[in-house]
Amino acid sequence: MKRTAPLIALGVLGLAVPVALWALQEHGAEHLDFARLFWVLAVMLIAGKFSGELSERMGQPAVLGELIAGALLGGSLLGVIPTAAEDSLTPIIEILAEIGVVILLFEIGLETDLKAMFRVGRGAAAIACVGVILPMIGGILFWLSPLGLHQYGPTGVTMTAIFIGGTLTATSVGITARVLQDLRVMHSFESRFIIGAAVIDDVLGLVVLGIVSGLAAGQAVTVLGIGRSFGVAVGFLVVAVGIGLWLAPKIFDVVNRMRVRGMLLVTAFAFVLVIAALADMAGSAMIVGAFAAGLILSGTNQFNLIQERIKPVADIFTPIFFLSIGAEFDVGLLNPMVAENLPVLGLGLSLFVIAVLGKVAAGWAAPWRRFNRLAVGIGMIPRGEVGLIFANIGLATGVLSRPLFGAIIIMVIGTTFIAPPLLKWSFSWGGVTHSFDKGPHKE
Amino acid sequence: MKRTAPLIALGVLGLAVPVALWALQEHGAEHLDFARLFWVLAVMLIAGKFSGELSERMGQPAVLGELIAGALLGGSLLGVIPTAAEDSLTPIIEILAEIGVVILLFEIGLETDLKAMFRVGRGAAAIACVGVILPMIGGILFWLSPLGLHQYGPTGVTMTAIFIGGTLTATSVGITARVLQDLRVMHSFESRFIIGAAVIDDVLGLVVLGIVSGLAAGQAVTVLGIGRSFGVAVGFLVVAVGIGLWLAPKIFDVVNRMRVRGMLLVTAFAFVLVIAALADMAGSAMIVGAFAAGLILSGTNQFNLIQERIKPVADIFTPIFFLSIGAEFDVGLLNPMVAENLPVLGLGLSLFVIAVLGKVAAGWAAPWRRFNRLAVGIGMIPRGEVGLIFANIGLATGVLSRPLFGAIIIMVIGTTFIAPPLLKWSFSWGGVTHSFDKGPHKE
Repeated sequence: MKRTAPLIALGVLGLAVPVALWALQEHGAEHLDFARLFWVLAVMLIAGKFSGELSERMGQPAVLGELIAGALLGGSLLGVIPTAAEDSLTPIIEILAEIGVVILLFEIGLETDLKAMFRVGRGAAAIACVGVILPMIGGILFWLSPLGLHQYGPTGVTMTAIFIGGTLTATSVGITARVLQDLRVMHSFESRFIIGAAVIDDVLGLVVLGIVSGLAAGQAVTVLGIGRSFGVAVGFLVVAVGIGLWLAPKIFDVVNRMRVRGMLLVTAFAFVLVIAALADMAGSAMIVGAFAAGLILSGTNQFNLIQERIKPVADIFTPIFFLSIGAEFDVGLLNPMVAENLPVLGLGLSLFVIAVLGKVAAGWAAPWRRFNRLAVGIGMIPRGEVGLIFANIGLATGVLSRPLFGAIIIMVIGTTFIAPPLLKWSFSWGGVTHSFDKGPHKE
Repeated sequence: MKRTAPLIALGVLGLAVPVALWALQEHGAEHLDFARLFWVLAVMLIAGKFSGELSERMGQPAVLGELIAGALLGGSLLGVIPTAAEDSLTPIIEILAEIGVVILLFEIGLETDLKAMFRVGRGAAAIACVGVILPMIGGILFWLSPLGLHQYGPTGVTMTAIFIGGTLTATSVGITARVLQDLRVMHSFESRFIIGAAVIDDVLGLVVLGIVSGLAAGQAVTVLGIGRSFGVAVGFLVVAVGIGLWLAPKIFDVVNRMRVRGMLLVTAFAFVLVIAALADMAGSAMIVGAFAAGLILSGTNQFNLIQERIKPVADIFTPIFFLSIGAEFDVGLLNPMVAENLPVLGLGLSLFVIAVLGKVAAGWAAPWRRFNRLAVGIGMIPRGEVGLIFANIGLATGVLSRPLFGAIIIMVIGTTFIAPPLLKWSFSWGGVTHSFDKGPHKE
């Protein structure tokens, strides 16, 4: 009986897609087409969940299925998920995806034990720094070496090299966090290292972004400027968590006495939105703010209730983020029959190897202790938002050429798709650590 | 201790609003400003919940507080909620509000007992028909009478009269349903009459809209055309509920065997989106489709779980709808010191009286049985979306003048704001009926 479920899943998927395609054709673009948006959302959610289910039944994390469903539904294949700038639904999907990743990082923050985090703090910082520096240097050296296919790059080899290095720096904490959630190893030491390092990594990546885009704009880069932007990003986190840990329990004790339905959840949700917006305004990333909000609220008395009630909201929003990431991928780039794809594929593959090796090596950067270093390194592999922002700025300022931009996209998507199965494998191969004394063990 | 809560509520409100105003100024309009949207949403949600809480503590339904918070935050006062067409956030808030009312009607549908509904079916139909015809005729006669201030209307008195009549027809089921939820009388006979009649009412209103806008466009109106659009709207409901009641339990039994997190909720949510979109495509309203989806899923084995898990999602989305409704209201129209407001106010007040009396009288249209007829009539008072759509078409085609349009807005908003306190009063005055044999009793 259980064997029929995947078949039914495929059947529903096969039915939903053509109906949605029909709905997409049927309606014009006058005003904002609510009916079409509803179709698109419904198809995204159903396709995402069913291919997530298939992915789990094949022994892979559900998020891999969502990414693949996104690629299938995206602009380069079925065109169900709107990605074109002129489509009126694109910004709506974008914002729903952003809310999705914000809620995900909030959940991760809620699940994170701040004290346990501090115990791995130095190790996580070491992993983050090495994981930023190694791929960056690797990318720069690669482009400056004879292996860099300079005929495909614009003039100004050094600037281009720095940009390529920059795109290789920042881990996308979203993907890894979802995989750790899917694998139910969120409370292991490996997860603490990964999440801690990925958050620090994100802050470092934004500082590098500030420096590199300043360079591209022809600004002089000063040690003071670098120090300031680093200070603001780190300072925001410290101040927000510090004030929050003191203030939030008081706010939520008052909120808890209110009678109106949904008060607790709505206040928690508004709290996340505000901290995320403040993080953005302070020059940090929204997801870093959302993670901080989660850390803060994990100290309130209402923590369990908040966690329980945000879950259904996360169930609806987070898949939209992963499907959107998948939809960004131009599947056509992978076709080796198109001659002009070959150098792009070659460059992309080289960058991909540098991206993977640099982060995996970082797993060994933490001070000596017994844990699954390979899993930690692999957990840092996926690149995401920050890398894509780098690439977009590079393209806009002419520092990157179109083929180089394509190669970077291949690297980003490649690391994103490889991380879920690789991480799952590394945990079952090297074990999970719940106590440093016992070291990693297999479950 | 409890007494301090409202003060703190006011304090938070007083703090959140200026910060949001500052955030609104701080950021430019380049691209889509996620940080600003997050601020706007956070302020809307917090202000809505806290003024809902204040409203409940003052013995009124929470939704009244949300409407007032919306009016305060709206374009005519603080300008926090974007309503201008050129603001890039307006469509985002619109779509979140639409998702909100769709989820609300889905919840109402889930809570509705289809068999119990059939028992009051004839009564509800009678109430709906009388409640559509009386205000329509009232509006037409008013405008044709010497009381109609024709100097403020455009030429073509008859056409204008028909349009005014049309705006008075359709009950906004959203407001009433929320009040019934807030008052916890959802399972009373009065609620069944109100919800049943309001849904039929909505279908009738859309048919009237089709006829009247056809007239305005100069089309010939045929009995066949009217019959067809009525048939499609009613037919959709019957077919959707019929097929759905047979198919949905099978789908959800399969879904229930899946392992992926959030499968059940996401499938239910996608189901609502699809039925709502189909309803829209069939010429009915999205909220009618959402209500039908709720009716359908109340027949599945997973009904309780779905109801429990959609609740947090509703808690976040539905207030956005009511705050948006409130934000539409131009508070300046109420200022009697502005001379040109006086005829608009006079007209609006007259239409308001017709709107209230017509629906209240409809409470006595159901075949004789003992229940709180006044509460049922009052439950039908709030006008909403359909009336506003009428008014917009009238303005666009020149059948309504600007002052008349303003008067209609006053009528719509007036009925919306008066219904929650009046409905609460009518239930405590005339009692609630849980069994026809015992008749209404006070709780």
